[in-house]
Amino acid sequence: MNSVTPKILPATPSATNPPLLIGDLLDSGVRMAGDNQIVYRDLSRHDYRRFRERVHQLAHLLSAQGVKAGDVVAVLDWDSHRYLEAFFAIPMIGAVLHTVNVRLAPEQIHYTMEHAEDDFVLVHEDFVALLEPLADKLPRIRGYLLCQDAPSSVVSSLNLAGEYEALLAEQPRHYDFPTFDENAVATLFYTTGTTGNPKGVFFTHRQLVLHTLAEASTFQTPGFELLNRDKVYMPITPMFHVHAWGVPYTATLMGATQVYPGRYEPEMLVKLLVGEKVDFSHCVPTLLNMVVGADAIASGKVDLSGWKVLVGGSPLTQPLCRKAWELGIDTRSAYGMSETCPLLTADILPRDIDQADFEAQLPWRCKAGVAVPLVSLEVVDEDGNPLPQDGESIGEVRVRAPWLTQSYYKEETRSEELWRDGWLHTGDVAALDERGFLQIRDRIKDVIKTGGEWVSSLDLENLIGQYPGISEVAVIGVADEQWGERPAALVVASDLNHPPESQQVKAFLQQFVDQGKINRWAIPSFIRFVDEIPKTSVGKLDKKRIRQEV
Amino acid sequence: MNSVTPKILPATPSATNPPLLIGDLLDSGVRMAGDNQIVYRDLSRHDYRRFRERVHQLAHLLSAQGVKAGDVVAVLDWDSHRYLEAFFAIPMIGAVLHTVNVRLAPEQIHYTMEHAEDDFVLVHEDFVALLEPLADKLPRIRGYLLCQDAPSSVVSSLNLAGEYEALLAEQPRHYDFPTFDENAVATLFYTTGTTGNPKGVFFTHRQLVLHTLAEASTFQTPGFELLNRDKVYMPITPMFHVHAWGVPYTATLMGATQVYPGRYEPEMLVKLLVGEKVDFSHCVPTLLNMVVGADAIASGKVDLSGWKVLVGGSPLTQPLCRKAWELGIDTRSAYGMSETCPLLTADILPRDIDQADFEAQLPWRCKAGVAVPLVSLEVVDEDGNPLPQDGESIGEVRVRAPWLTQSYYKEETRSEELWRDGWLHTGDVAALDERGFLQIRDRIKDVIKTGGEWVSSLDLENLIGQYPGISEVAVIGVADEQWGERPAALVVASDLNHPPESQQVKAFLQQFVDQGKINRWAIPSFIRFVDEIPKTSVGKLDKKRIRQEV
Repeated sequence: MNSVTPKILPATPSATNPPLLIGDLLDSGVRMAGDNQIVYRDLSRHDYRRFRERVHQLAHLLSAQGVKAGDVVAVLDWDSHRYLEAFFAIPMIGAVLHTVNVRLAPEQIHYTMEHAEDDFVLVHEDFVALLEPLADKLPRIRGYLLCQDAPSSVVSSLNLAGEYEALLAEQPRHYDFPTFDENAVATLFYTTGTTGNPKGVFFTHRQLVLHTLAEASTFQTPGFELLNRDKVYMPITPMFHVHAWGVPYTATLMGATQVYPGRYEPEMLVKLLVGEKVDFSHCVPTLLNMVVGADAIASGKVDLSGWKVLVGGSPLTQPLCRKAWELGIDTRSAYGMSETCPLLTADILPRDIDQADFEAQLPWRCKAGVAVPLVSLEVVDEDGNPLPQDGESIGEVRVRAPWLTQSYYKEETRSEELWRDGWLHTGDVAALDERGFLQIRDRIKDVIKTGGEWVSSLDLENLIGQYPGISEVAVIGVADEQWGERPAALVVASDLNHPPESQQVKAFLQQFVDQGKINRWAIPSFIRFVDEIPKTSVGKLDKKRIRQEV
Repeated sequence: MNSVTPKILPATPSATNPPLLIGDLLDSGVRMAGDNQIVYRDLSRHDYRRFRERVHQLAHLLSAQGVKAGDVVAVLDWDSHRYLEAFFAIPMIGAVLHTVNVRLAPEQIHYTMEHAEDDFVLVHEDFVALLEPLADKLPRIRGYLLCQDAPSSVVSSLNLAGEYEALLAEQPRHYDFPTFDENAVATLFYTTGTTGNPKGVFFTHRQLVLHTLAEASTFQTPGFELLNRDKVYMPITPMFHVHAWGVPYTATLMGATQVYPGRYEPEMLVKLLVGEKVDFSHCVPTLLNMVVGADAIASGKVDLSGWKVLVGGSPLTQPLCRKAWELGIDTRSAYGMSETCPLLTADILPRDIDQADFEAQLPWRCKAGVAVPLVSLEVVDEDGNPLPQDGESIGEVRVRAPWLTQSYYKEETRSEELWRDGWLHTGDVAALDERGFLQIRDRIKDVIKTGGEWVSSLDLENLIGQYPGISEVAVIGVADEQWGERPAALVVASDLNHPPESQQVKAFLQQFVDQGKINRWAIPSFIRFVDEIPKTSVGKLDKKRIRQEV
């Protein structure tokens, strides 16, 4: 990369060059669709104009509680209209929104809240009991704001400032928001790896605005077309998980109707999906699998046809994609991670594929897709050399984009490891095809090295998952003196009382060996039927625990 | 606006935070639609992959000619695939693209090229004779690259380096583009006011990337829906005029098919519109008026139904919008100016209006619309106080956005005048309605002050234009001892040999006085029928010349 001196011209003294701030996203939605609604369960709804007013009121409420720019404000809530307001009001006053992963163990929650240096907390009443024993160990926290769905008196040892709705109602409806450096931190949250403490990742106003603009353009592109002003959106990825993939910001920029389901309860989710005519959601494959397997849906009693679902977190498998399609559910894939805000790629179908039938689309729908605008993505070998785009050469995915976390918060060594060579290393192993479509094959640490060759645990999981009567599968590598490692599979049968024979599954896999699709060492040494496969707090296969249990 | 100290966290030393550079827009289009075409007249076509290669080749060609970062490269060409390549290659090497307005008088062209400090020139053979007498007076220019549609030898006193296509073909197909500060100037061009020399406005890489992202999201929004990956785009606003409203960048980001018509010749335009199945164009009202008035189109012999046209530069009138609609042409409005990159507002129809019939949409289609994402727009009184959004209170439009020129190039006084109080003053008088829709009523300097009241010359033009048999109208203020000013109208009859009676037109206007829509002083003192109304180089009514002629 050569160094050059381009022309930079001065601004006239009075000129204003506004920084990219999250508040800009809010105004756009109100202008384009002031009448559209923000819905919370079957409990409340209001339009965008009122939403904006409530953001201004929340800013007043926080200021009245002594929250100021530079403070860190933690939120422990289910997906709600309140959380959406916090997405805006907290960063807009210059404070940092810490979205606490409420699914972590209490000691991990304590760790993240201490490490983040939280100053103030918004807490849903469901989590009060969780925080009470931690409060003494978090002396920095100056106060707690209680979030309730219905007013009721709560007796707690926490220093509760009052209830969200009651205090909000008292606030003025216009807040004079400051402007400040677009590189100020807006959000902070923790990602759990398989080893060590959770790692904090953070995003600036600039990064979130750019991510939102790129996502808005991508989500409206033909061949993808998930969301626009006239659609109804409901997340089924928690808002504490990478800002629900940034979609609440994007939906707000567009002015789309937004439905927040609170705690994920199957009955409420279905009631909202049907009753609010939800057009678009996003979730991990595990959750989609639960939905399509639910009796009411599988039987056709509840009709979800027309629902579009963006799947990420783990690759979408062809069997799941097809099962959803048969129920009228239109699934697409995207790829990203906590460190990347998250959007990196989206499977925007090329025009010819978009016009083809479902069977032709199926493999494309399960790829991660092409890099979205402003993302540079490479698949490289162990020396950092880009691999050919032939759909077969697999290597690590590394990326650059204007919205990647610039370090793990207060973790120098791990930060340098993430960013070595000036590229963010995803730790994912993938192939790029001729059209630039990315297909994730595995996590680097989950790749199985057997007989001197790499075998993708994901590829094996996909193949085994095609065998009838299997609902879930996890493949790991187990040490083997002769081969280095050998694959092993844990399988959940669709009917737990009548699992298939593991010899039959191996025979099924032998076909793929005969067809040259996998090599013969890839057939697992053993296939064990279990009732349940360990998952992480975000619903991914927890291979660390699986390895311990095998 | 209060001042606050938000949290800014350091990046790990190895982290990369890429600047916003124009090159990012090019890669996105190739990834999403590598097969889509760039078409030039009936002369050439190639796909996006080849387009990208040609941009790399042009960068090599310019470098071989000694062009380097910080240099200014002027282009004098009709709208072409070459111009599109210059939109990318010149800024991507860190040089500044000066888009020369070839419609200006030679002495003005000389002024702009000298003032811009052009170092190198791309010149279409049609403009060689224009430049030859200027070359001695532009000693800074080191060389000229000739652009031809068909190879032929040109004898010229200019220091011609060779022909574009011939030299391009010799270049390597990959250029290692530098990265640099996103605040580097990418483009520079001149806007002609009614007084004084043309003024230079310039835009940075950052500004153009942000403008493109906002335009891409806006153009795909329901209620607007002008352009996406699967549409065919052809500009009918010259590329030297505010980067053809930035649409070539937006179309490239999306990967849309792009058709460049060269010199605007009616026969070629129609051939391309029909033959290439153009979905979307943009132009000034004057040009649309010519199109809908053309015999072949008005008679229905040429079918343009389904064509979407974005109208800007001057407000779209209801008669023109209706006339177009009757021919199947779907028009929308947007608002901006040279100083604003240009996009500020777009008439994204609210959902209820979007679903209504044409007659209900008509007034909305002729408004300028709502501010697009990241734009702050106010209508203020003479003291800078925002006016009520009642659709009636009129005042000056002032704006902030991350893509406004930060000064007039080397014009300190005019720059401060433009940016006084930290807002860019548009010089346009407008009203905002309850929904935040902007309606431009006049230029501040064209407002007529009569009997102590402001009368909008545009409003009068719209009313007079509704009288049957009138094809064009211009209203100006003429000095009047009793009233201060009084309106006067120049009118072109549809049938020049049989103009309406001016008394009948006045009687027609009296109705609106009776209905309370205009006051009685607004009826022009005289209505004069003429064969032609003076226009500026970009097709707007030239009120300065009109005033001189009246």
